[in-house]
Amino acid sequence: MRAIVIDEPGGPEVLIWREVPDPRPDRGEVIIDVAASAVNRADILQRRGFYNPPPGAPPYPGLECSGVIAEVGSDVEGFRPGDRVCALLAGGGYAEKVAVPWQQVMRAPDGVDLAEAAALPEVACTVWSNVFMTARLRKGETLLVHGGASGIGTLAVQLAKAFGSHVVVTAGSDEKIARCLELGADEGINYREEDFAEKVRADVILDIMGGPYLPGNVKALKTGGRLVVIGLQGGAKGELDLGALLTKRASVHGTTLRARPVDEKGVIVRGVVDNVWPLVEARAIRPVVHARVPMNEAAEAHRILESGGHVGKILLLTSSRS
Amino acid sequence: MRAIVIDEPGGPEVLIWREVPDPRPDRGEVIIDVAASAVNRADILQRRGFYNPPPGAPPYPGLECSGVIAEVGSDVEGFRPGDRVCALLAGGGYAEKVAVPWQQVMRAPDGVDLAEAAALPEVACTVWSNVFMTARLRKGETLLVHGGASGIGTLAVQLAKAFGSHVVVTAGSDEKIARCLELGADEGINYREEDFAEKVRADVILDIMGGPYLPGNVKALKTGGRLVVIGLQGGAKGELDLGALLTKRASVHGTTLRARPVDEKGVIVRGVVDNVWPLVEARAIRPVVHARVPMNEAAEAHRILESGGHVGKILLLTSSRS
Repeated sequence: MRAIVIDEPGGPEVLIWREVPDPRPDRGEVIIDVAASAVNRADILQRRGFYNPPPGAPPYPGLECSGVIAEVGSDVEGFRPGDRVCALLAGGGYAEKVAVPWQQVMRAPDGVDLAEAAALPEVACTVWSNVFMTARLRKGETLLVHGGASGIGTLAVQLAKAFGSHVVVTAGSDEKIARCLELGADEGINYREEDFAEKVRADVILDIMGGPYLPGNVKALKTGGRLVVIGLQGGAKGELDLGALLTKRASVHGTTLRARPVDEKGVIVRGVVDNVWPLVEARAIRPVVHARVPMNEAAEAHRILESGGHVGKILLLTSSRS
Repeated sequence: MRAIVIDEPGGPEVLIWREVPDPRPDRGEVIIDVAASAVNRADILQRRGFYNPPPGAPPYPGLECSGVIAEVGSDVEGFRPGDRVCALLAGGGYAEKVAVPWQQVMRAPDGVDLAEAAALPEVACTVWSNVFMTARLRKGETLLVHGGASGIGTLAVQLAKAFGSHVVVTAGSDEKIARCLELGADEGINYREEDFAEKVRADVILDIMGGPYLPGNVKALKTGGRLVVIGLQGGAKGELDLGALLTKRASVHGTTLRARPVDEKGVIVRGVVDNVWPLVEARAIRPVVHARVPMNEAAEAHRILESGGHVGKILLLTSSRS
């Protein structure tokens, strides 16, 4: 098969599409003929050499894919060759085939084309696990989503609205905010012009900025509020006002998806199939796709993500199924 | 009745025992003839003028008491005059009588004398709500308790051991550590001699120090760990390493008990009666009482707490029932 290999860390140009050995299914794994993968910010960190795949994961980038099951290893439950699926990967999505534990595989939801289904696993699992499982967002509560126009943001807005929450987003342009409002967001804050911590009080905050946003995020929490930090785009360290945290009886959670054990990922994946797929199939939630790029041009897809002008996900399509 | 009044903030000498009006029961309240109260660090903050009682609370200090129900207001469930009880108070325990919502009242557990029962409400509700309800400490997990010889610490050690956890304490002297080990702690760290963050890895940490301990506490958390901060004795602000929090999929919780709504206190109180009282009655948990001081000598009790040499609780006894 062919895959995107990274011989040494660097800019987008180090992503090379070339022939590599086919994967073989270990016990409990399936092989997926990949229709599409999608770009995540973690792929850029991996390309730059700052985020190595966890032990046992394929060396190629790519944290999600869609496709058709080509082969099934021993001890796999619920999947057969020919099934249309998408999957959460620990790596290896930028390839024509990938091996993945069956627990991380989901049937592709009806109503989206197979390539589009590659836009869903990371964002759906991230939003479901953090906003609903960890932070337990409830109907009527306010959710603040930083980076509302990102892949995660666009799914978070739609899912939280579908569950009856009030949703506020931040984004870096009025155009991005307009897109978030179209997706259902109740309010948008252009962070280049206004200080969100002066404008919103939220029960749950989903943050990708990290350290520099920590004081403002804690300030913006309501009593009983939960701040979930899933990215460190602004830096890892920040000042925490524990006095405010105590007074508000609030909490700060940090999580990552990639490093979790397979069983934990399996719980999240089943939660997504049970709770998110029905909303996709009812057209209450749509994957938001900014661009479809041939997988052998992954470098171009990385340039689009790094330029920051996108809204939603950037897909990488294999020639076989695009 | 008589109560300890604070005419103006200051040292222990501002605590004056004098005649004040008797409390009357509001709807949903009972009047307790106080046998004993106990000293909490929050009382010292209140005496100094840094921690005013929440709206509606009595102006006198005292966050807990034991005694006998003297009178029952309208809409009270489950209590009658003559019942031997203890209670979690929003204030007013340093008095011969106190009015309290019935939801915050517990029957006094069998097997401890009525005055001793005043040593239990704050510590039992604090440990139950934070270590078990918020942090969900599980059997086999490791709990780190800072200030293991405090009232809260001595109860946390006993309760966590009774539920099958591994318990590590920090304290400021070898003598205090020896007392914690007698109460069942598995390990003790003298913080004047050793850095706890180099020595222990914990699933749950119960912290009273706040800001200055934040970096070490995050370092000491295991994957999936929960840090619960309930005191700010070292300061309110600290640096939070969100990178470590994400990698560990850990969380930081801040809470206070006093400011919670009555209904939330009621849930905690019922949890204590159901889960902690049976262990008290089975002698698996003993209230640890450092000293019994007449309530009119509350100033002396504050001096003992502020000198820091105590292990466990300091009781304040009314003359009628001591």
